[in-house]
Amino acid sequence: MSSSVPSDRPIRIDNLQFVQPGTQSFSDWQAGGLDAVHITIAYHELFREMVSKVIAWNHWFEHQPKQIFHGRSADDVHKARASGRTAVFFGFQNPSPIEDDIGLVEVCHALGVRFMQLTYNNQSLLATGCYENQDTGLTRMGREVVAEMNRVGLVVDMSHSAERSTFEAIEHSVRPIAITHANPAAWFPAKRNKSDDLLKALAESSGMLGLSLYPHHLLDGTNCTLESFCQMAADTAEKIGVQSIGIGSDLCLGQPQSALEWMRSGRWTKIRDFGEGSADAPGFPDQPKWFQSGADFNNLDNGLKAVGFNEQERAAVLGENWLRFYEESFSPA
Amino acid sequence: MSSSVPSDRPIRIDNLQFVQPGTQSFSDWQAGGLDAVHITIAYHELFREMVSKVIAWNHWFEHQPKQIFHGRSADDVHKARASGRTAVFFGFQNPSPIEDDIGLVEVCHALGVRFMQLTYNNQSLLATGCYENQDTGLTRMGREVVAEMNRVGLVVDMSHSAERSTFEAIEHSVRPIAITHANPAAWFPAKRNKSDDLLKALAESSGMLGLSLYPHHLLDGTNCTLESFCQMAADTAEKIGVQSIGIGSDLCLGQPQSALEWMRSGRWTKIRDFGEGSADAPGFPDQPKWFQSGADFNNLDNGLKAVGFNEQERAAVLGENWLRFYEESFSPA
Repeated sequence: MSSSVPSDRPIRIDNLQFVQPGTQSFSDWQAGGLDAVHITIAYHELFREMVSKVIAWNHWFEHQPKQIFHGRSADDVHKARASGRTAVFFGFQNPSPIEDDIGLVEVCHALGVRFMQLTYNNQSLLATGCYENQDTGLTRMGREVVAEMNRVGLVVDMSHSAERSTFEAIEHSVRPIAITHANPAAWFPAKRNKSDDLLKALAESSGMLGLSLYPHHLLDGTNCTLESFCQMAADTAEKIGVQSIGIGSDLCLGQPQSALEWMRSGRWTKIRDFGEGSADAPGFPDQPKWFQSGADFNNLDNGLKAVGFNEQERAAVLGENWLRFYEESFSPA
Repeated sequence: MSSSVPSDRPIRIDNLQFVQPGTQSFSDWQAGGLDAVHITIAYHELFREMVSKVIAWNHWFEHQPKQIFHGRSADDVHKARASGRTAVFFGFQNPSPIEDDIGLVEVCHALGVRFMQLTYNNQSLLATGCYENQDTGLTRMGREVVAEMNRVGLVVDMSHSAERSTFEAIEHSVRPIAITHANPAAWFPAKRNKSDDLLKALAESSGMLGLSLYPHHLLDGTNCTLESFCQMAADTAEKIGVQSIGIGSDLCLGQPQSALEWMRSGRWTKIRDFGEGSADAPGFPDQPKWFQSGADFNNLDNGLKAVGFNEQERAAVLGENWLRFYEESFSPA
């Protein structure tokens, strides 16, 4: 563990990253005191393709056992904390890995997957993505899959879903759901950010919001200031309660352009889709200077302090809230 | 638990069955006092196809939780014993589910698979099956996969493999291997039965032999007597030690003819292969009268007693030996 992180500090969790695995990323996590990171392993992959991503991570678990291991339970976060490592939790940003087979929900849970978005940006078999013109809510299969996810302990994540679909997921799910990486639209009205009404419904159902550090979700993008971000966090805590807020940085680091194009266009279009980018700016946006890597959780701690979060509140936002959510969410019902 | 089985009896395990899942099979297991059964879930299936077999079993685990559950560790056998249920362990009779991808070994272990044959009857990517004319031993990939199986805790099973390949697997594996379902060729020289030299090498390396009740492996086939089978068990114990012997009945019950044809011909031939059967007798052979279902473990107990096995020896052969093997085999190295 980095000497800059006191050994009696609270648990820290980044509940959404899509960084390229490697010793640099893992060292950054340790420097930022991250005991757990939720990593995206699928955007458009079918089941067998997703399994190849699991295998790629298994390579790193085998070869860097002093830095990381595969996290499956809240206990693993404590285990990571005690051994100075980071527990890596798997998630999907699309239900494509379950194909059209509800039986794959339980199989994915057995493989250690703990979060699954019901949609990426488009309509899925389960619900509607935030880029569609019409939002028809949960589909027939969507309702069945949410019930099965509830049963096995796979968290419903609606970060990229459209509003009605998200309200219906909150309503239909008997366990709290998550929006792992998004910000309030009241702060910055990106298509991916969420209305206050939705965030209130999320929090009232004991759901969690992971605040995003992805420039396209930030006021002023790459030039967003730490103060602006942290003031937004304070305003959000005011609206929905500090207990419902964590970090899901959406940090994309060390990924090739092809990974971004796969995220955006998958195999669903023959015409290049630019997603939140544009033809003029087709690449990954630059991160703000104060959040360049997992190590910069220390900056977030300072920034939250500066806008008035006390020690306990900072601990809650930077990890303890997600830890409580993990405790309640990952075991079979 | 059936009232015919005393509650203080030792652990019983059938370490190979291919029965159709259903309440009849599960009741038979309970009547026979079976705390654990190793079930074949793949003959020629590729990875994704095998996962559908896992899903089919998950259906039964969900709907018959008072009779069965998915076994993953030796502790689960005790858990089954304590709750009057049967723990079901998964295995493959062919390495087809790992395709050409060594990374799938660990993934299959994560899905709860605990045994994998390096070959079915034919040459595989890993070794040579017992029906080939030439036995070239372990392949390059075979040696790598055995090492990986050793690492993750997936047992090498050579029941259907040719002799040289089996000797090489015993030699190359750093953990004991199994022949889960076969008999000594000295008793009945079927192609699938094993030489005394091979069985001695197996036992000297702490490996296990599961004695088979499949008629094609029995002297006089369907008409084999309980006494003949149990005397063979006694002779085998004399040769290689009682600690190396268990039961792997190879019981195929309630399966349609199409399952038998899939076992024998898979997709590897366009001409129908009859395996151990023949054009005149293409179906599953009839079981001996004294071993019709899992319930007939009680007959085996009586038969072993009649040929001189004492109580401790019968307990060892009918389950405790496999339990010890499970304890040593299923965890990562």
